[in-house]
Amino acid sequence: MTPSHQAAVEAAGEAVDLERRLLAGERRALARAMSLVEDGRPEGERLLRDLFARTGAAHRVGVTGPPGAGKSTLVEKLVLVARADGMSVGVLAVDPTSPFTGGALLGDRVRMGALAGDPGVFIRSMATRGSLGGLAAASVELADLLDAQGRQLILVETVGVGQSELEVARAADTTVVVLTPESGDGIQAMKAGLLEAGDVFVVNKADRGGADKLRRSLEATLSWRELPDGAWRPPVLNAAAVKGEGVTAVADAVAAHRAHLQATGAWDLLRRERWRTRVRSIVNRRLARRLWGDPETEAILEQALADGARSPYEAADAVLDSLVGPAANG
Amino acid sequence: MTPSHQAAVEAAGEAVDLERRLLAGERRALARAMSLVEDGRPEGERLLRDLFARTGAAHRVGVTGPPGAGKSTLVEKLVLVARADGMSVGVLAVDPTSPFTGGALLGDRVRMGALAGDPGVFIRSMATRGSLGGLAAASVELADLLDAQGRQLILVETVGVGQSELEVARAADTTVVVLTPESGDGIQAMKAGLLEAGDVFVVNKADRGGADKLRRSLEATLSWRELPDGAWRPPVLNAAAVKGEGVTAVADAVAAHRAHLQATGAWDLLRRERWRTRVRSIVNRRLARRLWGDPETEAILEQALADGARSPYEAADAVLDSLVGPAANG
Repeated sequence: MTPSHQAAVEAAGEAVDLERRLLAGERRALARAMSLVEDGRPEGERLLRDLFARTGAAHRVGVTGPPGAGKSTLVEKLVLVARADGMSVGVLAVDPTSPFTGGALLGDRVRMGALAGDPGVFIRSMATRGSLGGLAAASVELADLLDAQGRQLILVETVGVGQSELEVARAADTTVVVLTPESGDGIQAMKAGLLEAGDVFVVNKADRGGADKLRRSLEATLSWRELPDGAWRPPVLNAAAVKGEGVTAVADAVAAHRAHLQATGAWDLLRRERWRTRVRSIVNRRLARRLWGDPETEAILEQALADGARSPYEAADAVLDSLVGPAANG
Repeated sequence: MTPSHQAAVEAAGEAVDLERRLLAGERRALARAMSLVEDGRPEGERLLRDLFARTGAAHRVGVTGPPGAGKSTLVEKLVLVARADGMSVGVLAVDPTSPFTGGALLGDRVRMGALAGDPGVFIRSMATRGSLGGLAAASVELADLLDAQGRQLILVETVGVGQSELEVARAADTTVVVLTPESGDGIQAMKAGLLEAGDVFVVNKADRGGADKLRRSLEATLSWRELPDGAWRPPVLNAAAVKGEGVTAVADAVAAHRAHLQATGAWDLLRRERWRTRVRSIVNRRLARRLWGDPETEAILEQALADGARSPYEAADAVLDSLVGPAANG
């Protein structure tokens, strides 16, 4: 056995071992697998490929809203409710302003620390490095790992301000939109497309006044939508997450939405759609990896640039020809 | 000559005629060409391909900032300054909250109407329909048409809140970031990555107080950046665009940035980079058109779904195999 052959065998053995430990519920194996995936390592992709058949059972819940709406506090309280019901939970924090991700006050961090001490909860902060499109893809992959480990509830916290963040939310079964009565959140939410994205709306910090007004205006706006009979009607709930008020009602609404999805077949449909989106993003990623930075493509581009005013359309033709052959490139 | 052959000859004749009229400076030809491009018509792409060699001379200036910062008012005043200097100008409004695009007050619209009466100014609002990634690509293509017609200054107004909007700004030679002393614009701008994107900063509505404080804090933040000798140092300028105050200084800073780009060679470098980005987006668009919705791809996906737990990675392999052949798909 050559040394490189031996190294490959050892790596394969390690991968099998990692998969086994992850499936056995080991937290450290989960953390290691997540790092492999986040770093774009081939072992990470192999794991995702092998574990895919074991995913699909978890309820994936996106929690989104503007910065300062109290999303992470609500997430923390929802975790406590789920834990009291004996559920195993995973949390992914994609929000750069979240205390999970480390952008906030010491008091918040201490609270999160207490939560992290519970073995039934696994929390992972995702760096918003690189493109946000990549982030959406990565958050789905990390959720797969949590799902494969048998975690029944996966909460993904994002900031609902941009198109790309909405994509993260769209990968969820249930999207909880958290707003506060302050600072025109309602208007901002509409602009950001959050009203269309939400399955459950939470008017948080409801103890501060103005909550009922916002709730009524959200309800009025939502009621304009024409929905078929039997469609899910997103509830609007008041809460004061920091005091724990209204949190059980939110958890109940989230569970009711899950039951609705399962009763109508939307649960399976969502998984099929998500699978299609995954295929597409994997294909795009592979094509990007093959095409850009590749010496052959680079030579084509350099030649076109050297030719002077050659249009990007002609150069694109040449790049595609190099990928699929001139005959196939119609 | 068969009827379909005749139709093709007529279409080709019309395209040549459209190109000729566009190059002769006709506004209606420009508007028609823009519609062809926005609608994704093949004639639009042919035009862009043919006209590409005539682009590159225009100064492309992105004007971005949060909603309500007064971007369109500043754009209008910058147009007036440029017109007084005898420059031919194009304006693209990609901001859904802009009065150009129709999201604002009647008073604003009337002002814009006055500007639109000047034959040396061409204004186009871009719908934010479809994906914002597509919007960034489309705005570059419309700018190409303005550029090919010999318009010397192209102003592109966007809202600087999301990643995708920043991409629009990145396609510019010079990015002007407009902020107001109100409502924590400075903090928001930092979060949105606007501080890194800006070449010229404008503290607008400077007559309302708080402007000097914001200006000093922006200057302090910008001064933290380590820049090589001779690098462009983004100025921070106070303005009250609605009164016309400070606008000439902004126009001068924009012109100075252009001169700096040209003196350092960055002007040509930007064009090469932009060309590369264009090639990439054209290739991606063509691959997407070929792969998704294609019956062969659809059959592969349906088969994989029918197989049950086949992972998206395996399905992606199959889709890529169908594109480039199994041997080439490494």
